[in-house]
Amino acid sequence: MPDLDLWRELGQQLRVDAVRTSAHVGSGHPTSSMSAADLAAVLLADHFRYDFDDPKSPANDRLVFSKGHASPLVYGLFRAAGALSEDELLTYREFGSRLEGHPTPVLPWVDVATGSLGQGLPIGVGMAIAGKRLDRLPFRVWVICGDSEMAEGSMWEAIEHAAFYGLDNLTAIIDVNRLGQRGETMHGWDLASYSDRVRAFGWHAIEIDGHDVAQIDAAYKEAESTPKPTAVIAKTLKGKGYSKVEDQNGWHGKAIAEEAIQELGGVRNITVDVPKPEPSERHRFEPEPQAWPRYDVGSEVSTRKAYGEALAALGGERTDVVALDGEVSNSTFSELFRDAHPERFFEMYIAEQQMVAAAVGMQVLGWKPFASTFAAFMSRAYDFVRMAAVSRATIKLCGSHAGVSIGEDGPSQMGLEDLAAFRAVSGSKVLYPCDGNQTTKLVRAMGDLDGISYLRTTRSDTSVVYEPDEEFPVGGSKTLRSSDDDEVTVVAAGITVHEALKAADALAGEGTAVRVLDCYSVKPIDAETLRRLGTPIVTVEDHWAEGGLGEAVLAALADAEERPQVTVLAVREMPRSGKPAQLLAAAGIDADAIAAAVRALVSAAAPA
Amino acid sequence: MPDLDLWRELGQQLRVDAVRTSAHVGSGHPTSSMSAADLAAVLLADHFRYDFDDPKSPANDRLVFSKGHASPLVYGLFRAAGALSEDELLTYREFGSRLEGHPTPVLPWVDVATGSLGQGLPIGVGMAIAGKRLDRLPFRVWVICGDSEMAEGSMWEAIEHAAFYGLDNLTAIIDVNRLGQRGETMHGWDLASYSDRVRAFGWHAIEIDGHDVAQIDAAYKEAESTPKPTAVIAKTLKGKGYSKVEDQNGWHGKAIAEEAIQELGGVRNITVDVPKPEPSERHRFEPEPQAWPRYDVGSEVSTRKAYGEALAALGGERTDVVALDGEVSNSTFSELFRDAHPERFFEMYIAEQQMVAAAVGMQVLGWKPFASTFAAFMSRAYDFVRMAAVSRATIKLCGSHAGVSIGEDGPSQMGLEDLAAFRAVSGSKVLYPCDGNQTTKLVRAMGDLDGISYLRTTRSDTSVVYEPDEEFPVGGSKTLRSSDDDEVTVVAAGITVHEALKAADALAGEGTAVRVLDCYSVKPIDAETLRRLGTPIVTVEDHWAEGGLGEAVLAALADAEERPQVTVLAVREMPRSGKPAQLLAAAGIDADAIAAAVRALVSAAAPA
Repeated sequence: MPDLDLWRELGQQLRVDAVRTSAHVGSGHPTSSMSAADLAAVLLADHFRYDFDDPKSPANDRLVFSKGHASPLVYGLFRAAGALSEDELLTYREFGSRLEGHPTPVLPWVDVATGSLGQGLPIGVGMAIAGKRLDRLPFRVWVICGDSEMAEGSMWEAIEHAAFYGLDNLTAIIDVNRLGQRGETMHGWDLASYSDRVRAFGWHAIEIDGHDVAQIDAAYKEAESTPKPTAVIAKTLKGKGYSKVEDQNGWHGKAIAEEAIQELGGVRNITVDVPKPEPSERHRFEPEPQAWPRYDVGSEVSTRKAYGEALAALGGERTDVVALDGEVSNSTFSELFRDAHPERFFEMYIAEQQMVAAAVGMQVLGWKPFASTFAAFMSRAYDFVRMAAVSRATIKLCGSHAGVSIGEDGPSQMGLEDLAAFRAVSGSKVLYPCDGNQTTKLVRAMGDLDGISYLRTTRSDTSVVYEPDEEFPVGGSKTLRSSDDDEVTVVAAGITVHEALKAADALAGEGTAVRVLDCYSVKPIDAETLRRLGTPIVTVEDHWAEGGLGEAVLAALADAEERPQVTVLAVREMPRSGKPAQLLAAAGIDADAIAAAVRALVSAAAPA
Repeated sequence: MPDLDLWRELGQQLRVDAVRTSAHVGSGHPTSSMSAADLAAVLLADHFRYDFDDPKSPANDRLVFSKGHASPLVYGLFRAAGALSEDELLTYREFGSRLEGHPTPVLPWVDVATGSLGQGLPIGVGMAIAGKRLDRLPFRVWVICGDSEMAEGSMWEAIEHAAFYGLDNLTAIIDVNRLGQRGETMHGWDLASYSDRVRAFGWHAIEIDGHDVAQIDAAYKEAESTPKPTAVIAKTLKGKGYSKVEDQNGWHGKAIAEEAIQELGGVRNITVDVPKPEPSERHRFEPEPQAWPRYDVGSEVSTRKAYGEALAALGGERTDVVALDGEVSNSTFSELFRDAHPERFFEMYIAEQQMVAAAVGMQVLGWKPFASTFAAFMSRAYDFVRMAAVSRATIKLCGSHAGVSIGEDGPSQMGLEDLAAFRAVSGSKVLYPCDGNQTTKLVRAMGDLDGISYLRTTRSDTSVVYEPDEEFPVGGSKTLRSSDDDEVTVVAAGITVHEALKAADALAGEGTAVRVLDCYSVKPIDAETLRRLGTPIVTVEDHWAEGGLGEAVLAALADAEERPQVTVLAVREMPRSGKPAQLLAAAGIDADAIAAAVRALVSAAAPA
């Protein structure tokens, strides 16, 4: 027998707590919390199965607030569940508090950071795919969405993929409070505009009054028993319950007066005994050991192909490794993983945002996702990578077809900003191998890295320069040529290592000894080795001059006692189509350009 | 009387030319061109109105190949229109050729670069909005889309906005050839999956056989007379016309044998006399001059508010300026432009990709779009910015709420990677003002800048330090404190300028003279001044340490004869919520941290 009054009272408690927390600090989004309070109350009281003492339990339902600005509601829910004290609730948004302005996993019951709209649902899709296809557990993923964020294309990527993957374990609760930040949304209270769209994408949709607890309960029951992903589309009032702001524009993201508490009936202290899920064991895949690839020195293989081969081997050894790709698996070579471990491969089609979001969702459940596409198209998901760092997520990304060396396809397909973009991600690791054996070791290392790691691979075949048993620690570098007479050091990575070696050979013929340093770990970079070089430096990269290898080297030397002169060779003009060698030459990053830069440094250093 | 045979022959010619060009160079996407050949042939022969001798004419229809990999078809069309010679056609993908692997505006009949899928339709939306609301001309925007790219969320942002803006001048032609790069698409030949979706979004949809020229012609006629945006959803065969590859997987992006030419009936030399549009004058807005804002030194104003005020003034002076915003115009203050010039303001809701794409589309017609959102959310549109550079587009972007100084909202809302991301855009200008008067001048300067310019603004009020008549050339800097005894130079920008001034005052009290340099132009940076400083340097920025101001300074000094020691102060750990001053302190970028860094450099330089 449902306790409608309890649900209503709990909704009011959540509103009061949203008002209290925001008023206390003088900021936050109480009105956006109040619209969704009844939706959250019924969920917590009667549908959500979760062990607050064991938030990482694989049996738990997952709850994602895609509308992360409703953080006062999130924290009010945790108080109502008995997980958060009254005292801590009132630390909201204070420096050092776990209760940040938008939810982050600093709190153990928050799986992922939200606050960049349009991300929670795609991440929920990743969790739900994990539930159905990896963990194979009956948990349900609930995502509370705002109506404004339905304008984000990423929401429709999520809706498309949820239908495609048959995610009947996913419920999207859309809080249609009509008002965005600066005014009415595109569709206002036209609930049918949402339900028509999601139904056309293959979902079940239920339109309800989002303040009628009986309707909410019935909708959740229907969602639980419908063999499709379901959207509960709820008409609500922003600021519901406080007459001065209810359904009024101009109250987004503003604290409201504590007098609202009186109108809402005062502070309540209901604690809900949230039912725990049935204990259950997640599915485990069987190891399928296969030999690690080994390439003969002097043979040719592209690092992208070596990525695929290494990933397949890693997947045989580690059954927690999964792979995703953005419909280019025959270019990134993640298809080799797919062929070896089809149950752990997920085709994300041309939806890079959904691809990265799904990886973030899967890692919440403990999986180790590797996601790949062209390096250029990783830029499509940059906001998702940024937010993955705020989520303290552990994901592994591979961008292929880096730089002008791809050749004829032209600049739209050339990843030329990926080093800059990924270096500027908190805690990231940025790796850029030059040969097959190095790629193998770095992919293997990525399996153990925490946080966001990025591997940059090259389209064309390159010579194998390292023995298969060589080690490549993250943060290290390799000196490929050196002598006591080195006049200049060429710092290269990836494709330019081979150009640097050619240049060193040519210069040796002229009597100029050159050291060649392979900085395969662009972040963290091997600052110690760089600071010990004692020679002028030429850096060379198949990347824009900004934010890449050259600037990483400069940053490592910035405050050193000895700061050698550095010539940065990089791509500085928009490339065109052409053969790889033509484009490396045109960009001034081939062996000839390196040799010329070395000669200029040597003659500048020579006594007059 | 339609000439069905001519259309069929022209379709075959386009196929033959796609085969020829790709075979000649040994790469390219002939099969993706062959599927859309009949769709393109009927368009060129009987619907497209365009003056190939005057490609910039505002009366012209616009044609965007959203599936840019079908470049052999694009170039074949230009040959069929008499615009491109047989000889030039066969330079496809050669180094130096205008016929790049994916279309770019190096060719005068290409408005925008495509090749990153899912971008052509959103850009077409921008063109169509310009046609209806700015130019007020009857031209039509035709966008040829691939079926694979319908998985990109940006396509659904475009479909949503086209319906919202009532773009009956926009036709999307969806080439449903069933096969993506690595296999079948999500929906194969299920045309209804596309038509149901677009209809739910408010479009008209027509399903046809994409190889039946009469059906194609009828569909285009229907699109032209339907008062809604219309999608022509065409079932086609990839590689149509060459039995060895037709509807076969494994032929994406591969040149095919010239024997296909024989099966296709050999080389043809049809030239179509493409009808020119009626000459027509674009609408012009009336200037509405208003006073430029002037702020008193010592008063307080946020640079984001100064942006809005300056933009409104610029719009009064220049009637080609338009503004777009991602549903945060009351935060970015673009609402001040909206209020002053409502006909030239476009609400893009929370769809940053569509926002940037619309700006790119509008600038094709000669408008000067300024688009704004939080700096953090510019990352959502990074691939669109990257491609805008390949398009040689002139757009102006403003990211507000930069850095940890936003305070309580927390890291999801903090732009901390925007300097790195925008510096790594080809030809970009990156500007970061510290006060209201500087903002005004930089916004005014942006109106005249070519290429991609980015302005970074701060949430909180800051003191006005410059007189209203001070000039701030792009590429310059300002020395705010200096004396002959300066021991260290602090290089700051934006919010940290104020911290640097406070630090300089404190240090002066200790007898340490410090120069303060305001590098408001982060790119291009004032290398000349930096190379002349002759003191150790502290750089300080409210941005990650990678790719921002510090590394820009280091890059400017890299190959200088004197390379002073540089201490880079920047955000290095994930910020939390808190008050702005607490967060600046916690990140080590406030006045105290600057003073400490200066002291350390001074004592290191002192004789032992």
